[in-house]
Amino acid sequence: MPHRYFTTEISDGTAVLRGEDAHHLTRVMRAKLGEKVILCDGKAVEYTATITGFGDELVEFSVEPGYPSAAEPSVEVTLLAGYPKQDKLEQIIRHGVELGCAHVIPFFSRYCVAAPKKEEQKNVRYNRIAFEAAKQCGRGVLPDVALPLPNFGAVCRTFDQYDLVLFCYECGGAPLRELLAQTPAPEGRPLKIALVTGAEGGFAAEEAAAAAAAGAKTVGLGPRILRCETAPLAVLSAVMTLTGNLE
Amino acid sequence: MPHRYFTTEISDGTAVLRGEDAHHLTRVMRAKLGEKVILCDGKAVEYTATITGFGDELVEFSVEPGYPSAAEPSVEVTLLAGYPKQDKLEQIIRHGVELGCAHVIPFFSRYCVAAPKKEEQKNVRYNRIAFEAAKQCGRGVLPDVALPLPNFGAVCRTFDQYDLVLFCYECGGAPLRELLAQTPAPEGRPLKIALVTGAEGGFAAEEAAAAAAAGAKTVGLGPRILRCETAPLAVLSAVMTLTGNLE
Repeated sequence: MPHRYFTTEISDGTAVLRGEDAHHLTRVMRAKLGEKVILCDGKAVEYTATITGFGDELVEFSVEPGYPSAAEPSVEVTLLAGYPKQDKLEQIIRHGVELGCAHVIPFFSRYCVAAPKKEEQKNVRYNRIAFEAAKQCGRGVLPDVALPLPNFGAVCRTFDQYDLVLFCYECGGAPLRELLAQTPAPEGRPLKIALVTGAEGGFAAEEAAAAAAAGAKTVGLGPRILRCETAPLAVLSAVMTLTGNLE
Repeated sequence: MPHRYFTTEISDGTAVLRGEDAHHLTRVMRAKLGEKVILCDGKAVEYTATITGFGDELVEFSVEPGYPSAAEPSVEVTLLAGYPKQDKLEQIIRHGVELGCAHVIPFFSRYCVAAPKKEEQKNVRYNRIAFEAAKQCGRGVLPDVALPLPNFGAVCRTFDQYDLVLFCYECGGAPLRELLAQTPAPEGRPLKIALVTGAEGGFAAEEAAAAAAAGAKTVGLGPRILRCETAPLAVLSAVMTLTGNLE
């Protein structure tokens, strides 16, 4: 399989790759003129590209007409994850990107144990992790990681953007397949789904009530208590399975 | 929710808890006579138990009649996981137990990067991780971790034990929901499913052929390449979703 790189500089049958990726292709992969790679514009369009020149920390290509990436799911899933301790958010981002999520939005809530600290700096690292995971697993879209929302009220105020908001609550709720079956697919664009999962401390009853009041559907994930780093991946896998995107 | 402990010493309305768990209940939880806990026999039967006495590193209980654990899935899933590097097997065990698997069997195969080393010693640790995860997530059965199988031939020779063997191959296969739908439920016992996933290096074409020859069904997990620690959890979540055990 040819190597894949993301670049936004694609137009009129030519493309340019810069920075670390250009360095990687030139120095690490020792690519030659005429070699082919896959370029991806990060918006689910891919191009077969032939190397036509090497410059100062850049590589030039001629590209064939673009084609839609086969790796993108038919649903646009945003993972709203309660901010966990240690490096668990990195795990959630890495695996979430592989499993096809489009956006990750961490948030702080009542029983969150982690406290906000140098979040701008961490966000750069989180987006780098998403970028590397997207490249490695063959995504056609670059999933982004937002700066954390400061409280659960801010989370609830985003719910209007989605066709379906699934609030994963350890006290149980409706089966995921029923909630998905009840949500009609919109015309001409992918179904936008938000998955809301808690941090180690879980959610306060008031937060669960606020989520429901803001339009979220409370979903049950079975009788076993899932860890805060397992729940997002389980529900994401389940959504992808039930929408035919994990086959 | 009362605390949960596993013990096999339950009979005639009484039970005994020993060792570390007895120490935990006595010293850490500072339990008193008359307090209630949930005892589980590790075979999916649970008991409401009342503390009747404390001994030398043991706790005694009177127990009410047992009831079936609500936490156990209706399918018996064995995770056959290619032995990964670093602490990834620990992650697979921990999350696999939460997601309801019954057994974990690591194995070495052609392109495995990890090499067998002190496996008896590691196995004790792996089973301890499974035990802790089972307690924490509320399982009624204690999933076990086997010593690793030395090669893929040994893996294939176990396939006869299962009703359905799903071989997860990055080169794709049939959709999981079709393979599950084609497999009739046996009478009087849970469906036994094996999930076979590779280590970092994936599988050799001969191994894929050997798996198919031994009766495995090759399953596709979508167009994105999943890491060796993500694939088992994705396919396990998918199986649990499709069999109604993640709701």
